[in-house]
Amino acid sequence: DLPFALIAGPCQLESLDHARMLAEKIAEACAATGTGFIFKGSYDKANRSSLGGKRGLGAEKGLEILGAIKSEFGCPVITDVHETHHCAMAAEVVDILQIPAFLCRQTDLLLAAGETGKAINVKKGQFLAPWDMANVAAKIESTGNTNIMLCERGTSFGYNTLVSDFRGLPTMAETGYPVVFDATHSVQQPGGNGNSSGGDRRMVPPLARAAVAVGCAALFIETHEDPDNAPSDGPNMVPIEQLQPLLAKLRALDNVMKS
Amino acid sequence: DLPFALIAGPCQLESLDHARMLAEKIAEACAATGTGFIFKGSYDKANRSSLGGKRGLGAEKGLEILGAIKSEFGCPVITDVHETHHCAMAAEVVDILQIPAFLCRQTDLLLAAGETGKAINVKKGQFLAPWDMANVAAKIESTGNTNIMLCERGTSFGYNTLVSDFRGLPTMAETGYPVVFDATHSVQQPGGNGNSSGGDRRMVPPLARAAVAVGCAALFIETHEDPDNAPSDGPNMVPIEQLQPLLAKLRALDNVMKS
Amino acid sequence: DLPFALIAGPCQLESLDHARMLAEKIAEACAATGTGFIFKGSYDKANRSSLGGKRGLGAEKGLEILGAIKSEFGCPVITDVHETHHCAMAAEVVDILQIPAFLCRQTDLLLAAGETGKAINVKKGQFLAPWDMANVAAKIESTGNTNIMLCERGTSFGYNTLVSDFRGLPTMAETGYPVVFDATHSVQQPGGNGNSSGGDRRMVPPLARAAVAVGCAALFIETHEDPDNAPSDGPNMVPIEQLQPLLAKLRALDNVMKS
Amino acid sequence: DLPFALIAGPCQLESLDHARMLAEKIAEACAATGTGFIFKGSYDKANRSSLGGKRGLGAEKGLEILGAIKSEFGCPVITDVHETHHCAMAAEVVDILQIPAFLCRQTDLLLAAGETGKAINVKKGQFLAPWDMANVAAKIESTGNTNIMLCERGTSFGYNTLVSDFRGLPTMAETGYPVVFDATHSVQQPGGNGNSSGGDRRMVPPLARAAVAVGCAALFIETHEDPDNAPSDGPNMVPIEQLQPLLAKLRALDNVMKS
Repeated sequence: DLPFALIAGPCQLESLDHARMLAEKIAEACAATGTGFIFKGSYDKANRSSLGGKRGLGAEKGLEILGAIKSEFGCPVITDVHETHHCAMAAEVVDILQIPAFLCRQTDLLLAAGETGKAINVKKGQFLAPWDMANVAAKIESTGNTNIMLCERGTSFGYNTLVSDFRGLPTMAETGYPVVFDATHSVQQPGGNGNSSGGDRRMVPPLARAAVAVGCAALFIETHEDPDNAPSDGPNMVPIEQLQPLLAKLRALDNVMKS
Repeated sequence: DLPFALIAGPCQLESLDHARMLAEKIAEACAATGTGFIFKGSYDKANRSSLGGKRGLGAEKGLEILGAIKSEFGCPVITDVHETHHCAMAAEVVDILQIPAFLCRQTDLLLAAGETGKAINVKKGQFLAPWDMANVAAKIESTGNTNIMLCERGTSFGYNTLVSDFRGLPTMAETGYPVVFDATHSVQQPGGNGNSSGGDRRMVPPLARAAVAVGCAALFIETHEDPDNAPSDGPNMVPIEQLQPLLAKLRALDNVMKS
Repeated sequence: DLPFALIAGPCQLESLDHARMLAEKIAEACAATGTGFIFKGSYDKANRSSLGGKRGLGAEKGLEILGAIKSEFGCPVITDVHETHHCAMAAEVVDILQIPAFLCRQTDLLLAAGETGKAINVKKGQFLAPWDMANVAAKIESTGNTNIMLCERGTSFGYNTLVSDFRGLPTMAETGYPVVFDATHSVQQPGGNGNSSGGDRRMVPPLARAAVAVGCAALFIETHEDPDNAPSDGPNMVPIEQLQPLLAKLRALDNVMKS
Repeated sequence: DLPFALIAGPCQLESLDHARMLAEKIAEACAATGTGFIFKGSYDKANRSSLGGKRGLGAEKGLEILGAIKSEFGCPVITDVHETHHCAMAAEVVDILQIPAFLCRQTDLLLAAGETGKAINVKKGQFLAPWDMANVAAKIESTGNTNIMLCERGTSFGYNTLVSDFRGLPTMAETGYPVVFDATHSVQQPGGNGNSSGGDRRMVPPLARAAVAVGCAALFIETHEDPDNAPSDGPNMVPIEQLQPLLAKLRALDNVMKS
């Protein structure tokens, strides 16, 4: 098995300067630990808890930033899409299209994403069992695209809480597709702050370690220089200065796991 | 409080003749029990468990059937929409647009639906707490449309199972909007049959009775003349000949509850 | 089916005078609504959330009170037992022994209770499926005692929360034994107040109505003249003055349901 | 932090010869990997799913075997107790008394166990949140005994299923007490086989690795030479010949984690 790659970035793109600043620090942490780096940024938060949550920069500006990061840092970039007509446009710039968890059973979206020929990272819906993702992957396969990744990001566990069931990683891996663990959204408390999601970022390192020890192809970790003031998912993001030591530990565990 | 209304029909529209046959029997059962009747039919099952599940007749044919039922039976009709661009077209025919549970936080869809000025029935996501629906309603309200209904249809409870939390009905009613109980999808076992959802239709009557006794503005019950051979949700649909006795009991409970 | 009976009393016995005062008011409410009355009181709360919670009056004093209520009001009395050696002593006074939910799979306790020949009300563990209760009943049956009642009191749903799955009532009834719905503990939030359980007594009436509409042989409702200052389960108890109107509504629903 | 210790043995004691055979193989695997070894065996399965499940050898015979293993192998031994009057007798032989998950809030049992002065391993109830265990520990502390271990063994997740929430390990560790991960019962499917618990032993290694990577003081792993024919928990036990390679991997992960 290959060493895990890191999908990282801010939750929400804020500006080119901001994306560049974060990408530089993430790239350094990845280089120092020998970790493959994929830059993640969203330009349209289409399902915020409430209307008051910031939507983002929009597709035009967002894709411009992602294109710039890709060309400046030479790393693949990933973003999420929400309706069928978003796929082709995003695919002109990004390397990986991400299907949000709530939308992971929307047939048309999966097909439109698959038809771009790009890699597709599908987040497992909070309402699905790990074994149900084989049906999701089959929808994409029907387009001839088998460049698929399946991502665990937490499962509904009572109200306003998610639990990470680590049995899901080997279960989803039985499809033959690489499995990603999203350590950021797994610690979310959806709706936990009334008008926005809460979370507990202190749980990101232990859950990321667990995922690596169970075995995964990639980790997804959102990061920010000032999470408490980030426009979205602040409670769950890892402060950027903590990323490199976390990666170093994860890399050492991954080496043991995959040896 | 007004007596409950019934939203009923097949899960999936099959043909005009089939819709007419069911509508006639439902209308009879409603007339016999003094129940308001809203005809429900889907023409596009956009999130089947697997690609092999039947999608439906498509918008053109489906809306034609819904229009015909509406005009022949004089009842309001309801159908579900999945992407923003579906809303305006459906709104030309139907009286109520339904937002599927998986999509209940998609801001653009809620806004597009709200902007049609039609009534909107939003199903609570299986991943949401009842109190989180106030944020969902607020998104629609922002369009100036307050003709909103909130619908309980089961909450994630472990894998491949839903549970109906009847505390959710009074909780959602605190928004001031009418609350619907979907007795059909509440008994679903999502993904329970591997490539399709399972369910247990024997539980529809007890859960419908519970909902009426707790208090609700409408019941949603899918029905079919041959559920075991229906193109979707067969395990959960009530055989049409059982509808009238069920309604009679529900009506009697509703009378007691609201007296 | 027979009309539902009511199992009611304070959660915890406080004194003979207090028990008598409550029993009198409950008996009045039952008489006014034609409801069979079983007096419930605990004298030993053996599994409080924390050590600081009041344990109760103890077996000697508690059984004396239960005996007095039984003889003064002519109603059956019920109490809970926690270890094998409690059963015989309690059985000298009470008509029904109750097995707490946490203990519903303790073989020795079930056998010791069964061997007293008294009726046994077993609460379904928060960790059990309704169909698992057939195995529990079979343990008691092995003593030759088939005077068994099975009681729903909420199922674990995430942390510090219970959900009432009303499908459990008909499922448990398939054993042939009468099914009780505990409307008090079903609205508990275990550990929800840190050192003690929280709850939401406003949900007792809707859930009790749901249980009656689904169909049950008895309701279990704890009540108090001043719930907020009761020694245990205050957040979940119904104020005594609200009992009679609640019973009247429940009785009317039960009549419709069982007609 | 100290390296993790291993609590291992058959679920149920079968005979002295059998216990000796397993203890020898476990001791070898522990010695080869530098792992501290605590022998576990139950002589009274007091809460089997059904009456047909084997109860065990009983206290007299069971304690004799545990005493023999302790003296022959020089390892500490642990067993579970179910009623207050079992504690003192077991404490004459064993080093650690284990409180079963269903019983973790039974005040009298916790106090009786605490009063023996022995170490106490309390399994977190499937119905409790990790933070609720501080109240459980405090009950034992009240006896002056602070030799306490807290053990995660799965949390109720829908019916007949458990999920391991690895956030629970650091949460329980905030008490200051060592945290044990029970990799055997965490993969149980309670009641999953109708009359007995099911499970999936293939998930023991990934969950054990996750626990070590998150950080824990001890692992609990039941093992058998022929799990499919073991008298209890066969579906969850690791075949004895797989123990040493599993331990080797876990030890390497633990070294990285605690360095």
